[in-house]
Amino acid sequence: MIDKLDLKYMKLALNEAKKGYLLDEVPIGCVIVSSGVVIRAHNTKEKTKDATCHAEINAIKKACKKLDAKVLPNATIYVTVEPCLMCLGAILQARITRLVYGAKEEKFGATSVLDNYQSNHTLLVSGGVLENEAKELMQEFFKAKRLK
Amino acid sequence: MIDKLDLKYMKLALNEAKKGYLLDEVPIGCVIVSSGVVIRAHNTKEKTKDATCHAEINAIKKACKKLDAKVLPNATIYVTVEPCLMCLGAILQARITRLVYGAKEEKFGATSVLDNYQSNHTLLVSGGVLENEAKELMQEFFKAKRLK
Repeated sequence: MIDKLDLKYMKLALNEAKKGYLLDEVPIGCVIVSSGVVIRAHNTKEKTKDATCHAEINAIKKACKKLDAKVLPNATIYVTVEPCLMCLGAILQARITRLVYGAKEEKFGATSVLDNYQSNHTLLVSGGVLENEAKELMQEFFKAKRLK
Repeated sequence: MIDKLDLKYMKLALNEAKKGYLLDEVPIGCVIVSSGVVIRAHNTKEKTKDATCHAEINAIKKACKKLDAKVLPNATIYVTVEPCLMCLGAILQARITRLVYGAKEEKFGATSVLDNYQSNHTLLVSGGVLENEAKELMQEFFKAKRLK
């Protein structure tokens, strides 16, 4: 059974993903909940022409700024799609407590790396929250891209 | 035998690390060479209070901006210390061709992850260039921190 709060914040993350979609960005959305503050971000790689501007990196940067903190302990990060290596690493760097993602990313998803990578921080990971919604959004986006 | 160009750019990266040191940042420096353009950056995590502001992320962001490109193929990235998971992931995201690092990072260095992580991009990796200089700078920095 999925936690009500997890559902609530993943819905917000999905809304962010949809915002990205409308801006022709890969539709991945992210929400960080930390110390009662809710931060939202989507992918802006196309707009910014910056390889690092994934939803998670954007959200972590926003959260650090908003909370005036270089790390975010006690935070939960919600992402509609399993994070890539860069974003997973950023989540560890920010010492975020918990990662909740929607759809598994078979090719670039990096959470399995945690089994072998030594870090000084333990991250709790849950996957599959609103998985189908996140997956359908991605499939629709790439299908439309291919048709263009 | 170490390539002359590798030595030249690693020296620049070490200079960046020293700049960071003087600003009380963990002394790691980075240089990206791409299409004849040389981009330099150091760690700015303390100054910006941003968990993502490692030398490599700063350099990739600068390079994307300078070259107006969301990826940096044919680029080489020089880092004084082996990259962490986040920075290694960012290097893959930016499709950088080659990574040259100085000192091995026993705890957080992530290059061994490449053996198992599936990515659609092959990164060439060389380590050990001006290793001792990079290592001594780090040791000196953390020794001074402990004495404070």
